[in-house]
Amino acid sequence: MSLRALTVFAVEGIGEISAGDDLATILAVACGDDLADGDILAVTSKIVSKAEGRMLPAADREEAITAETVRVVATREYPGGVTRIVENRLGIVAAAAGVDASNTPKGTVLLLPVDPDASARRLRAELGRRCGVNVAVVITDTLGRPWRRGQTDAAIGVAGMAPLLDLRGGMDSAGRRLSATVTAVADEVAAAADLVKGKTSGCPVAVLRGLARLVAAPADGVRPQEAGAAELIRPAEQDMFRLGTAEAKAAGWQEGYDAGYAAGSGLTATSGLPVAGCSSTTASTP
Amino acid sequence: MSLRALTVFAVEGIGEISAGDDLATILAVACGDDLADGDILAVTSKIVSKAEGRMLPAADREEAITAETVRVVATREYPGGVTRIVENRLGIVAAAAGVDASNTPKGTVLLLPVDPDASARRLRAELGRRCGVNVAVVITDTLGRPWRRGQTDAAIGVAGMAPLLDLRGGMDSAGRRLSATVTAVADEVAAAADLVKGKTSGCPVAVLRGLARLVAAPADGVRPQEAGAAELIRPAEQDMFRLGTAEAKAAGWQEGYDAGYAAGSGLTATSGLPVAGCSSTTASTP
Repeated sequence: MSLRALTVFAVEGIGEISAGDDLATILAVACGDDLADGDILAVTSKIVSKAEGRMLPAADREEAITAETVRVVATREYPGGVTRIVENRLGIVAAAAGVDASNTPKGTVLLLPVDPDASARRLRAELGRRCGVNVAVVITDTLGRPWRRGQTDAAIGVAGMAPLLDLRGGMDSAGRRLSATVTAVADEVAAAADLVKGKTSGCPVAVLRGLARLVAAPADGVRPQEAGAAELIRPAEQDMFRLGTAEAKAAGWQEGYDAGYAAGSGLTATSGLPVAGCSSTTASTP
Repeated sequence: MSLRALTVFAVEGIGEISAGDDLATILAVACGDDLADGDILAVTSKIVSKAEGRMLPAADREEAITAETVRVVATREYPGGVTRIVENRLGIVAAAAGVDASNTPKGTVLLLPVDPDASARRLRAELGRRCGVNVAVVITDTLGRPWRRGQTDAAIGVAGMAPLLDLRGGMDSAGRRLSATVTAVADEVAAAADLVKGKTSGCPVAVLRGLARLVAAPADGVRPQEAGAAELIRPAEQDMFRLGTAEAKAAGWQEGYDAGYAAGSGLTATSGLPVAGCSSTTASTP
C-alpha cells in the first residue's frame, strides 16, 4: 500500500444537536483520542445550524427562502412545485437558497449557519484548545450542479486550510507548466467525507487523515482572518452562468423587442430621428 | 476509529503510458496483491486516452476541440485567448471539450477516451480476470463548475457501480421521507481519489477501499449493459443552463427584435395584418 494514503472515518455517537449546544465540546468528546495533528474534520452544516438555533417552523419555508435570497438565478415550475435556484447571502448558488427540510424535526426547516467560515474557525480553535491538536475544519452542504445529475457535498465553511490549491506555475510530469489547474480541495474533502457520512446514517461528521500537507500551521496569538470558503465563490464578473437560459433569453427578448419596436416604428436610435412618413410600415430585415 | 472507514491510496509505479499499452495488465501488476473485492479503482482518463492512442499534435488543438464539440454552451474571450464551454460528444459540458494539454508529451494534446464507460467495463473485466477480484472502475476527468472557483475531479466512465445513489424514498433520522437527494457517488469517488492522486505527482490511479456496498456483484456470463457515467449527464429538458447568459440573452434579443420590429412597423402578428397608414410611426408602449 502506498504511503500516500488517505483515511476517512465517520465520527460516531454525536446524537441529536439542539439550539445552544456546545458543538465543539460534543465533537471533542465524540472524537475522544481519535483526533491527530493534520486531520481535517468535515462537519455537516446541518448540525452547525441546529447548534446555532437556525431552525424555523416549516410554514415559514417560502418566506425563509426569500429572506436568504440575494438574487434569483433561475426558476422552473414542475407539476409538484417550483425549483428556485438562487444566490444566497453567502454568495452560494443553490436550490431553495440552501434552506433545508430533511434531517430536521418534523414541522421545521433549517437555515444555513449565519457565517459558516466563522463557525469553522471557532470549531477549529476550540478543538485545538480542548484536544491539543491542530486540525482543519470544513463545513459541508449538499449542492446540485448544472449539467450533471445528482448532488455532491461541497464546502461552505473552511478554517485551517486553503480551499483552493493553486497548481498554476507548477510543472506536470513532462516538465510543462500547468496553466489552468486550481483544485477546489475543500470541495473534494467535502465530497470524500460524504462517502462515509451518508445522508441517512445519522453520522454528521467525518475525519480525513493523510492530508496534513493541506492543513495550515496553528496560528498563535491574534489569528489573521482567513479567506475561508468565501474564496470558492466565483466573482460575478467571471460568472458565465449568471442567469438561467430561460431568464436570460427573456431579458434579452425584452431589450430586443424595445429596440426592434423603435426601429420598426421609425424611432430607431440609429437614425437619431423618427423616420418621416410611412416607410417604417414596410417590413425589412432588421 | 469507526467501522465506517474509507481508505484511499495511490497506486505507485505505473510509469508512462503509450499508445497500445495493455492498461489492464499494467494496473494489475502495479496493484500487485493490493486489490481486494469491493475496491473501487479511480483511473485518470489521461492514461486511458494514452493507451488508446488518443494523442494529437498540439497544432491541431483548435480543430480537435471543434471535432469533439457537439454544441457550444458559452464562449468568453479574455486577453490571453478564449474559453469555450461546450458539450462534447459524450454529453459532458466542459471547457475545451475536455481536450487536454497538461501531462502529455510536449507538442501534443490528448482527446478523451472514445467511450470511457466501455473502457471502464473492459478494465473492470480484465482486472477481475487477472487479479481474481470484483472491483468497480471509475474513469476520472477534471472539470470546472459554474458559480464555484476551482476544479474538481468527476466521473466520466463508470463500471461496476451505480454512479447515482438514489436516496429518495429513504428516511432521514427524524423518520421523514428524503425527497430530493440523489447523490452522485461516482463523482464523489473521483473527487476523493484526486486528493491522493494529485495532478503533479505522476500517480494516475487510486484505490478506494471501504465502499464495497456501492460495488455491484460480478456479472457472470453475458454482462448486461450498464448505464455507466452516461447516467450522470443531465438530460437537455432538465437543463436550466443550456446556454451561457450572454449567449441566451443574444438569442432572446434577436427574437425580441424581430417581434418588436414587426409590431412597431405594423406587421405585428397579433393583428394578423399590417396596420394601415402611419399609425405605427407613433411610438407606444409595446
